[in-house]
This record gives sequence, structure tokens and C-alpha cells, in this order.
Amino acid sequence: MLDGVDKLVIVGTGLLGASVGLAAKAAGFRGRIVGVARREEVGRVALERGCVDEISLDAGEAAKGAGLIVVAVPLGGFEAVFHAIREPVVASSAVVTDVGSTKAGVMRLAQEIFGQGAKRVIGAHPMAGSEQAGPEAATAELLRGKPCVITAGQQDDADAIELVEQLWRGVGMSVVRMDPDEHDRCMAAVSHLPHLAAVGLIGVVSELGGWQVASTGLKDTSRLASSNPPMRADIIHENREALAEVLRGYAKRITAMAELVERDDQTRLLELLESAKAKRDTWLAEREAES
Amino acid sequence: MLDGVDKLVIVGTGLLGASVGLAAKAAGFRGRIVGVARREEVGRVALERGCVDEISLDAGEAAKGAGLIVVAVPLGGFEAVFHAIREPVVASSAVVTDVGSTKAGVMRLAQEIFGQGAKRVIGAHPMAGSEQAGPEAATAELLRGKPCVITAGQQDDADAIELVEQLWRGVGMSVVRMDPDEHDRCMAAVSHLPHLAAVGLIGVVSELGGWQVASTGLKDTSRLASSNPPMRADIIHENREALAEVLRGYAKRITAMAELVERDDQTRLLELLESAKAKRDTWLAEREAES
Repeated sequence: MLDGVDKLVIVGTGLLGASVGLAAKAAGFRGRIVGVARREEVGRVALERGCVDEISLDAGEAAKGAGLIVVAVPLGGFEAVFHAIREPVVASSAVVTDVGSTKAGVMRLAQEIFGQGAKRVIGAHPMAGSEQAGPEAATAELLRGKPCVITAGQQDDADAIELVEQLWRGVGMSVVRMDPDEHDRCMAAVSHLPHLAAVGLIGVVSELGGWQVASTGLKDTSRLASSNPPMRADIIHENREALAEVLRGYAKRITAMAELVERDDQTRLLELLESAKAKRDTWLAEREAES
Repeated sequence: MLDGVDKLVIVGTGLLGASVGLAAKAAGFRGRIVGVARREEVGRVALERGCVDEISLDAGEAAKGAGLIVVAVPLGGFEAVFHAIREPVVASSAVVTDVGSTKAGVMRLAQEIFGQGAKRVIGAHPMAGSEQAGPEAATAELLRGKPCVITAGQQDDADAIELVEQLWRGVGMSVVRMDPDEHDRCMAAVSHLPHLAAVGLIGVVSELGGWQVASTGLKDTSRLASSNPPMRADIIHENREALAEVLRGYAKRITAMAELVERDDQTRLLELLESAKAKRDTWLAEREAES
């Protein structure tokens, strides 16, 4: 596991960062793990739970001599962290990866801040989470069996890609390669759009009424509307370019369905319903087969 | 239970009709229950399972001398059934109710066919169902604890309303009164729109990709897209007027969100997410408290 890496630095010891530490140890990583915390008490919990071997409050200091650095802070914190670790990264052969849930912006930032060094910055989006937060909730199991998107391109350093793949595969994730724009568009389609579609449904029912006759259909379809608003607003902000386009495409589809319903075009409507059912059922069957 | 009714006729001995028979018996109805089947073998299953006391293949004959008639056939079959039972209903004081999942069209049809007698036709929509179909799957429990909309108005016969409420409350349902248009608009909002919203989400992902990174968010939000297409197409057809309007309103909301995302209006977006979360959480908490 992570051959040749003596020092693994995890910047951000929240749920994801602390879980990466635990999972790396569980997967047999024998080097030292340094956790960088902004608040000492958070770092101390990660240390006491054995997620990391030592803590630091200074990302730049911690990055010195690191073989691999995992940036696991909220998206709004990336710019400061990249600046802080810039010198040690550019001056060494350290490899950087991250856990950011949008990728085009992060990779653009890496290009701006690390310049040539950006070819050793291999973006990742490990798709794991929990209702809980903080190192208290971290487990080695959090990442296991989940997909992890890696946004490595042809311009990137092959050894760096190899190392980052080793990390994410090592902690039990199934690695998928995409380019950053493709990642953001896919995430907009499968995650950020469903959230706003749910918000829209709640808006319609709030306007027209029907709560007392609403049932599991609305409950399931609108589940994402109950997720944490500030966290969701942050993700929307970060992925706004891809998401706006996907939302416009969705609105067009809904309008086209309204027209079919108005025209009472039962043949075309039935085709549409059959096709959607077939695609969803196929997806779920394949997902089931893989797990 | 159903005081003064000696003969209860259930036209249609499928899942719902047969369950009404079982539930009426379980609730203490002591009169005779006649099930009307289009296909004898379906009626025989209902008879053998004790859902009805006798079967008939002729709705008009069966309706003679009935105190209460429950029309439990698919929406496309209402016109023929109403014509078949017209004479005995108009000539007597028989009360009619139904299980149709849209109401404006059914009540308009009742007005056309029964004329003055329509004031004893009290529309109902018992909101219960199952993945299964047919009298084989019928249970007295199917209806218990679920909402039942009754579309009684001021023009309707007070005794007829009273009797129909006795039936649906007696089988364990919680009765909600709405006018037919309100019912159809509410159902469009809480049930038919969520289905087409799910179909639209599957369409977007099919176009843009992302299946391999899709997770429980998409799975739950799109669940209704896997429901039975011909059955759904039928419901859409029956409720097309209300649904088309609701779909247009939903498309406008999605477009408005696309504009907020494009403008990066984080304040307004956060308000929208907070409001949707509060409304959904309040609905679920009240629903929980009632059950």
C-alpha cells in the first residue's frame, strides 16, 4: 500500500479525511500519517481515535517531506490550502489528491497555483458520505465499495496517477476515470439535479395543496429536499455552470411532457414511460450485479 | 355498519373491490355482498376467498334492490358500468360510490348519465394499492389507515354522503372532503407530477451519462419511473387537464432555479432550500404524529 510513501499528509480531519486515515492503516499503510486540522480540538479527536499518527495546525509545515497529500477540506477552503502547500509541493515530487465533490473548479485552481506542479495534482471525488460529520463518525468502512472518480488526464504524471489510484483502490473504492467537466456534468445530472427537482416538487405541493393525500410516492421523490441546505447551497455554487445547463435541459423535458399530456398523445407517452422504466431497471440490475 | 343496507353490490372484483368486500365483512356488515365480475373466473376467486357472498356477470341485474353500489373497475370501464346500472339507480334510492383515481371526469359522467340521480353518486378515491393485482391479493387490511377522498358537494343528498362516509370510515380509512377539481389538481401535484418528474430525471441521465456514479439519491428520486407504464399512462390520460397545468408550473419553477443558479444568487437559493426542507419535514412530522 502506497509503496515509497513514508509520510502521508491529510489536510482536514473531518469525516472523510479521518476515514481515509483509518482506511489507509487498515489497508496496511506502514508510513506516518499527519493530520492537519484548522481547529486543534478536531485534530485531537482524530489523533485519539487513531485516524492519524500526529496532528499539525500548519498545512505548509506538514507538507514538507510528504509523499502524498490528501486535501479533505470543504470546497471553499481549497484555495487557502493549495497556497499553503504550494512551496513544498512544487519543490518536491509530492503527489496531491483531494475529495472535492466538484472537479473543474478545483483542477483550474490547481493549474493556477501549482503551475507545472499541477501534473502531480490528481483530482478525486470519493463518493462516500454519511448523515454524520467530524472525525467522531470516521470509519475505515465508510469508503469501501463506493465509486471514486479520478480526473487524471494525458498531461498528468503517470507515477502520480498510479499512486493516487493505489490510495483509492487500497481503501476499497472502485475507481472511475473522467475528465473534470464530464465529472461535473454527470454529478449535476445524477445528484444535484435530483435535489433541485425534489425542491421543486415541494414547491408545487406547497402552492397547490394536497399534503393530506400525499403518500410514499411524494415522500421518496422529495427525500433529497430534506438534506442540509447550507451544504447543498455550497455544492450548487461550486457546480453552478454544469448544473444550470442540466436544469435547463430538465425544464425542457418537463415542458415537452406537458405538451404530450395536453395533446393526449398516448402512444408517445407510453413509449416515454416504457423507455424510462427500462433504463432505470437496467441500471439497478447492473448495480445489483456489481455489488 | 351501513345501517339499512341489505344488499351491497361491488362492481369489479379486482384487488380494490374484493378488499372492500373483505373489509366490510370484517367491520361487521351483516347484509349480502354481490360481486359483479366481467370474467367469471375472477369473480369465482373473489367468491372462494369470501370477499363476496355471490357473483354476477350482469351489473344491471345485480344493482336491482341494492342499497349501496361500489364501482371498482378501471377508469376506462366507468361509462359502461354507469349505463348498465342507470335504471335501477334512478328508479330507487340506491347510493353509488366508486374507487376511481381521478374525479372530475367521473363526476361529469355521473351527471350526464344519472341526471337527478347523480346527487346519490358520491365519488370516492380510496388511496390504497399494492404491487399485486386481482382478488388473490385482496385483504381487509389494504384500506386500513389510508386516506380516502370523498368528492361530495352541497348539491348532493345528505343521507347518501352519510352512507358513503360510513362505508369508507368503516373499513378503516380517514376520509378527506374535496371538490372533484381540487382532488384532481392535488393528485396531479402529489402523485402524477412526481412520476413524470422521475421519468424526466431518467431521461436527463440517459442523455448526459453518469450511471456509474449514480447513487441512492437518484435511486429514490426516480423510484416512480419504474412503475407500471400502461397503468400510469391511463392515469395520465384521465387526469390530463390538471396534470398539464401542474407540469407547466413545475417547468417554470425549474427554469426559475436555473436562473438563480446562473446568477449565483446564493441568498435566494439558500432561502428556497431552507423553505422546502422546512415544509417537507413539517409534513412528515405531522404524518408521523397522525399514524
